[in-house]
Amino acid sequence: MTLNVGVIGVGMIGQDHIRRITQVVSGARVTAVTDVDLDRAKAIAAGLPSAKALQTGQELIDDPEVDAAIVCSWGPTHEEYVLASIAAGKQVFCEKPLATTREACERILDAEVASGKRHVMVGFMRRYDDAYRAMKAAIDAGEIGAPLMFHSGHRNPTVPGHYVSDMIINDTCVHDVDVARFLLDSELTAVRVIKPRKNSLASDHLTDPLFILFEAANGAIVDVEASINIQYAYDIRGEVVGETGTVELAESNTVVVKKAGRYEGRVPDDWRERFIRAYDTEFQEWVDAAKKGESTGPSSWDGYAATVVCAAGLDALNSGERVEITMREQPDLYRTTAVTGPTGTD
Amino acid sequence: MTLNVGVIGVGMIGQDHIRRITQVVSGARVTAVTDVDLDRAKAIAAGLPSAKALQTGQELIDDPEVDAAIVCSWGPTHEEYVLASIAAGKQVFCEKPLATTREACERILDAEVASGKRHVMVGFMRRYDDAYRAMKAAIDAGEIGAPLMFHSGHRNPTVPGHYVSDMIINDTCVHDVDVARFLLDSELTAVRVIKPRKNSLASDHLTDPLFILFEAANGAIVDVEASINIQYAYDIRGEVVGETGTVELAESNTVVVKKAGRYEGRVPDDWRERFIRAYDTEFQEWVDAAKKGESTGPSSWDGYAATVVCAAGLDALNSGERVEITMREQPDLYRTTAVTGPTGTD
Amino acid sequence: MTLNVGVIGVGMIGQDHIRRITQVVSGARVTAVTDVDLDRAKAIAAGLPSAKALQTGQELIDDPEVDAAIVCSWGPTHEEYVLASIAAGKQVFCEKPLATTREACERILDAEVASGKRHVMVGFMRRYDDAYRAMKAAIDAGEIGAPLMFHSGHRNPTVPGHYVSDMIINDTCVHDVDVARFLLDSELTAVRVIKPRKNSLASDHLTDPLFILFEAANGAIVDVEASINIQYAYDIRGEVVGETGTVELAESNTVVVKKAGRYEGRVPDDWRERFIRAYDTEFQEWVDAAKKGESTGPSSWDGYAATVVCAAGLDALNSGERVEITMREQPDLYRTTAVTGPTGTD
Amino acid sequence: MTLNVGVIGVGMIGQDHIRRITQVVSGARVTAVTDVDLDRAKAIAAGLPSAKALQTGQELIDDPEVDAAIVCSWGPTHEEYVLASIAAGKQVFCEKPLATTREACERILDAEVASGKRHVMVGFMRRYDDAYRAMKAAIDAGEIGAPLMFHSGHRNPTVPGHYVSDMIINDTCVHDVDVARFLLDSELTAVRVIKPRKNSLASDHLTDPLFILFEAANGAIVDVEASINIQYAYDIRGEVVGETGTVELAESNTVVVKKAGRYEGRVPDDWRERFIRAYDTEFQEWVDAAKKGESTGPSSWDGYAATVVCAAGLDALNSGERVEITMREQPDLYRTTAVTGPTGTD
Repeated sequence: MTLNVGVIGVGMIGQDHIRRITQVVSGARVTAVTDVDLDRAKAIAAGLPSAKALQTGQELIDDPEVDAAIVCSWGPTHEEYVLASIAAGKQVFCEKPLATTREACERILDAEVASGKRHVMVGFMRRYDDAYRAMKAAIDAGEIGAPLMFHSGHRNPTVPGHYVSDMIINDTCVHDVDVARFLLDSELTAVRVIKPRKNSLASDHLTDPLFILFEAANGAIVDVEASINIQYAYDIRGEVVGETGTVELAESNTVVVKKAGRYEGRVPDDWRERFIRAYDTEFQEWVDAAKKGESTGPSSWDGYAATVVCAAGLDALNSGERVEITMREQPDLYRTTAVTGPTGTD
Repeated sequence: MTLNVGVIGVGMIGQDHIRRITQVVSGARVTAVTDVDLDRAKAIAAGLPSAKALQTGQELIDDPEVDAAIVCSWGPTHEEYVLASIAAGKQVFCEKPLATTREACERILDAEVASGKRHVMVGFMRRYDDAYRAMKAAIDAGEIGAPLMFHSGHRNPTVPGHYVSDMIINDTCVHDVDVARFLLDSELTAVRVIKPRKNSLASDHLTDPLFILFEAANGAIVDVEASINIQYAYDIRGEVVGETGTVELAESNTVVVKKAGRYEGRVPDDWRERFIRAYDTEFQEWVDAAKKGESTGPSSWDGYAATVVCAAGLDALNSGERVEITMREQPDLYRTTAVTGPTGTD
Repeated sequence: MTLNVGVIGVGMIGQDHIRRITQVVSGARVTAVTDVDLDRAKAIAAGLPSAKALQTGQELIDDPEVDAAIVCSWGPTHEEYVLASIAAGKQVFCEKPLATTREACERILDAEVASGKRHVMVGFMRRYDDAYRAMKAAIDAGEIGAPLMFHSGHRNPTVPGHYVSDMIINDTCVHDVDVARFLLDSELTAVRVIKPRKNSLASDHLTDPLFILFEAANGAIVDVEASINIQYAYDIRGEVVGETGTVELAESNTVVVKKAGRYEGRVPDDWRERFIRAYDTEFQEWVDAAKKGESTGPSSWDGYAATVVCAAGLDALNSGERVEITMREQPDLYRTTAVTGPTGTD
Repeated sequence: MTLNVGVIGVGMIGQDHIRRITQVVSGARVTAVTDVDLDRAKAIAAGLPSAKALQTGQELIDDPEVDAAIVCSWGPTHEEYVLASIAAGKQVFCEKPLATTREACERILDAEVASGKRHVMVGFMRRYDDAYRAMKAAIDAGEIGAPLMFHSGHRNPTVPGHYVSDMIINDTCVHDVDVARFLLDSELTAVRVIKPRKNSLASDHLTDPLFILFEAANGAIVDVEASINIQYAYDIRGEVVGETGTVELAESNTVVVKKAGRYEGRVPDDWRERFIRAYDTEFQEWVDAAKKGESTGPSSWDGYAATVVCAAGLDALNSGERVEITMREQPDLYRTTAVTGPTGTD
C-alpha cells in the first residue's frame, strides 16, 4: 500500500518535503498540493507524476485521494488545517509551530482529545537525529546518572535580512526547547533571557547573541547559547550533565584532513546539511505510522508546550525578568510513550 | 514509475535487500524472487505485497514483470545470472564477487562490451559511504597533494566458524582492494602478504592477522591490516597520505560519554551498523539509474579487477612471495567517469 | 646564582611546593621553613639539605638567607606575611587568596603601590597552563573575533568532608573567576547564582551543582558550571565564543585506547594531574623573575579582584539576586602587561 | 648536592642541553665544556656562571670537577668518549648513536659489562614522552591483549639540504626502531624497505617516502611510514594493535579552534615542539640517577640494538631484499628492568 499525501504550502520547505516523499521516502507519494499562490501549486503539481493542484487546504484535506496531509504553510494558518485534518480523521504532519498562540494550540488539543486518538505529528526533527537519539539513549540507560543540566548551543553562520530578534526565540531556540523537554523528560517552568555583548557583525536591530536560561519541573536547568551571526558554520552543540557523568554531541565530520600545520574536520554549513537525515527519518517514520492510521513522535502536546514556552521566552526577552511558565494539565492521550521517547511529561 | 525488481537468492543478504527495496528505498518494489531452496523463495514471496516465487534465475530474468535483477545467490552462480541479465538487456545488481574466476569475469566483460552499454553494478558499498566519499573528494580537491600511500585497517570482532583464511582475502579485504582502487584511481599491480604474530584468540586454522602490501600502477602503496578476531568492535580504519597532507576516516560515534575516569565513543558492532547507510544509498542510486536504463557505480571492470587482485593475493598468501598482477586492457566502455568516482584506470 | 626561598606553612600544599623547588625547578633551593606546628616545620627542615626551621613567618621573611618567600599558610594569615614581604623588599609568592577580605587586599595594594614596584605574585596557576595560554593566544591573535561569552565547567569528582558550599565560590570557582578575567581581559561587574537540581550524591549541606553567571565590563558574559560531586573525573571545561569562531579546551589525554566496543581517553583524576605542569611552570617563572628582583604573572590586583568578585558571588548565592561588583580604581602599577597576559584591566 | 656536568660537543644540540641543564633541570650545573672548535667552547663557557673550556673530551672526563658527561659531538667520536667515561667510572649521557658501527657498540658493551655496572644512557628521548609512556602502560596493563603489530608514522615537514636517504634510516627511523623495541618488548629480527611513489616535493637524491617493515622476535610486525617532506607538520603517529584492542597516540593539541567552516587543532611544527618535554624529563631522570651513581633508561644494549637494526635497514634499502638481523647474546647486565620500561629483551 502506498500512502497518498497532500501538501499544503509549497514554498521552499514544502517543495523539499515533496522531493523527500517522492525520491527518498519509501511507501508514499504526493497526490495533491495547494498553496496561497495557486499558480505555484499548479506548477509543482505539473512536475509530479500523480499530483493535482487544489484550491484550498480544506479541499485538499477532504479529497478522497489524500490519506494524510503535510502542513507547511504560513504559521498562522496551521491551526485551521490541523483542526480540519483531525475533523476528517486523517493523519497530519505539521511543521512547527503547531499554532502561533497558546489558545490555538489548546483548541487543537481539545479537538484531538475529543477525537479519541492522536492525529498530529509536529515537525521537531531533532528527535529523529541519530546524535540526539544516542544522547537520549545514554541518559535513559543511566550512563550519566540523573540529568541535572543541559548546555545547548545553537549557532547560525548568518540570518536572512527579514530575521528579527523574536525569531531567535520562536524559530531558532524553539528546537532547543523541544529537545530539552525530550532529553530531560520534564516540562520547562521558568525562563530568563540574558543579553551578552553584542556581535558587531549582527544587524543593528538584532540582539545577538542571547543566553537563555530555563528551569525544568524536575529542577534541572537548561542554558541555551543562541548565536545567529557566528560566521564559521552551523554548529549545534549540546551536553547533558548528570550526577555521575555527561553526554555530549560529537563533531559530525566523517573525515579528518591534515594540512598546513593543522588537523581539521568539517562543521556543517547549514541546517540542511546537519539535519537532512533527521528529516528523512522523520518522514519515513511518519509515513510508516500514518499507513497504519497511527501517530508517532512529537505530539500536539509537544507543539503546545513549545508555543507556551516560547511565548514566555519573548516576555523574558522584553522584560529582562524571570518569567514563570504555566501549562494546562496534560491530557491522558499524550501520556503514552512514543518510539522516539516519551512526550514531555514530568 | 516504479522499478520492478527480481531477487535471485533470498538468504540472509537477499532478505536484507528485499527489506531495503520494500521499506527504505524510494521508487522500487520486489515483484519476483527465486532461490535454490524453492520453499524459502515461496515463503518470502508470500510475505511481500506483490511478489511471486519463480523456479530459476533464468525464468526470473526473463519475466516481463521484472525490470532489473539483484543477484545475491552463491558466488559460483553469479556469472550465469549476470550474463543472462546482459542478454536480456536488463540492469543487474550483483553482490561481490562479480564472478569467482578471472575467466568468468572476462566472459562478462566481453558480453557487456558486445552489448554496447553498461548493465552491471557490483556491490562494493564502500563507494557509497559518506566517509569514503569525503575522503575521495578531499583527494580530488587536491587538499593533500598527490596520494602516495593508503593505510587501511579492516578489523572484525570475530568471524563465524566456517570462515577460512582464504576468505580474509576474498571476502574481507576485497573491500579494501576496491576502495584502494577507488581512492587512488589506479590499478593494483603487485601484492605481498605478511603474517604477523598470530592472535591467540583465532581458531587454529586461521592466519590472523594478515598484513597485505599492494603496489599500484602509479607507484603508490597500499597496506591493509586485516584483523578478524580483534574482539573490541568492527573498526574500519583508513588514511591516505599525500605529498602535502593526509586524510583519514574519523570515528563514527555521534555522542561522547564521560564516565568512570574516561571520555568514550562508540565503535560499531558489525558491518551492518557501520555501512547500513552506504547500502541504502547504494540501492537508491542503483534504482534511480536503473529506472533510466543506466548503470552507475562499480562496474564489471571493477568486479573483474577485484577478482584478479584477490586471486593474486591468495597466491601471495600461499607462497609468501611478491606476486605480480596482470590484467587485460581496459575496454573503452569502462573509461567513463561514474558519479561515485572514476573506475580504476591509471 | 641560586634563589634562597623560605616557605611559610608546610602543610600538604607547602610540602608539595618544597618538593617542586627542590626537585623540579631550576635555580632555587629552600633555606627556611616555618609553620604554626613548629614540630612539623622542624621535621620538614630536617629532610632538606640546607633548610632551617624558624619560629615565625616574620622571622623567616627577615632572615638574610631568605631571598623570597612562599606563603601557603592558612588564608587569614596571608595579609600579614605578604605585607611583611613587601616591607622587607622581598618577592613573595602567595597562594590564593591574596587575603580573605576586600579591605585586607586593599591594604596590600596600598603598601605595594607605596613601595613603587611589584613584589607579589598570586598563585592562579591556570594562567601557566599550556591550554589556557593557547586559548588566550588564539583570542589575542583574532582567530575568533571579539570574545562574547566564556562557558566554563569546573567538575570535581568529590570533595572532602569539611567542604562547605561557600567554598564552591571561594576555593573552586575562584579559578574560573581569575581565568575569565585573564581570557576576556575585562573586569567582572555583576554576578548571579542559580541552583540547579541537586546532585543526590552530594552531602545534605552542599548546594551542588551551582550555575554562576557573571557579567563583564566589556559586556561579555561568563557562565560557570560548578559540579563538585560528579564522580567521573576532575574535568575542567572551557570555551570562549567570539564573533566569528570559538576556542575550547581540548581533552588532555595522550593516548586513545580501543577496547570493548569503545574508543576512550583518560580524563584527569584530580587537580594535581590536570595542573601539575602549570604549577611547575608557574614556579619556574616566579623563580626566574624573583632572581632579578621582579614580579610576573597574577598580581595583587588580580588577587584583590578575585576576593571582591567571590565576596559578591557569596552574596548572590545567599540572596538569590543579581549582585553588582564594584572595585576601586586600578593603580597604574598594575597596568603593565605581564608575560602571561595583561592583568585584568578593561 | 649538585651534579657537575661536562658537555662534549657544543653545537646546536649541545647548546640546547646546556640550556636545559642550566635553566630547566633541577640539581645539576655545567662545569666544563669542550668542542672540536675550541673557540666555540670558550665562548659557551664564558656565558655560563661556573664552566671552563677544556681542550679535549678525555681531559673533560678526567676533570675532578666533572661528575658526569654529556656526549653530543659528531657520531664517530661517541665510542671514544663513552669508553673513556666507563673507564673513569663516571656516568655518561650519549646522544644517539651510541656508536656508528656494530663493532664499536660491542666494545662499549664489553667495557661496561667488565665494569660490573651500567654507566651509559643513550638519548632515545621518546621513552620519556608522556604519550609513549601511556601507550606502554596500557600495553603492560593488558588493556589491548598481546601486541601483534605496531604501525608507526614519522613525518617531517621538510629536511635540510645536507640530508641524504641513509639518514631516513639512521637519524629519523632510529627513533621508531627504539620505541618499537620499547613498546613490544622484543628485539627486531628482520627488515624490508619498500619505496612508494616518490614525493615530487623531495629533492632528486632522496627516496621519500619509505615504508619499512620489521619483524620482531615475538612474531609481531612493525611498519614505519617515513615521510620527510610532507609539508604540513611534524607529525608522529603510532598505534599498537593487540589481540583484543589497540592503543594509539592522541593528537597533542591543547585547544580546538572553530572558524571558517572547520574545527581544527594544531599539529607540532618540529621535533622540538613535539618532544621538548620528553627531553626535559629525560635529563631530569638522568641527573637524578647520576647523582646516585646509577643509570636509568635506554642502555648501551639499546644503543647497540639500534645501530645493528639500522645497519640492516640500510642493507635492505640498498638491496630491496628482506634482511635478517642478528645480535649477540644479551649480557645479564642489561636484563634488569628500568623505570622507563625493560630494555629490549625478548
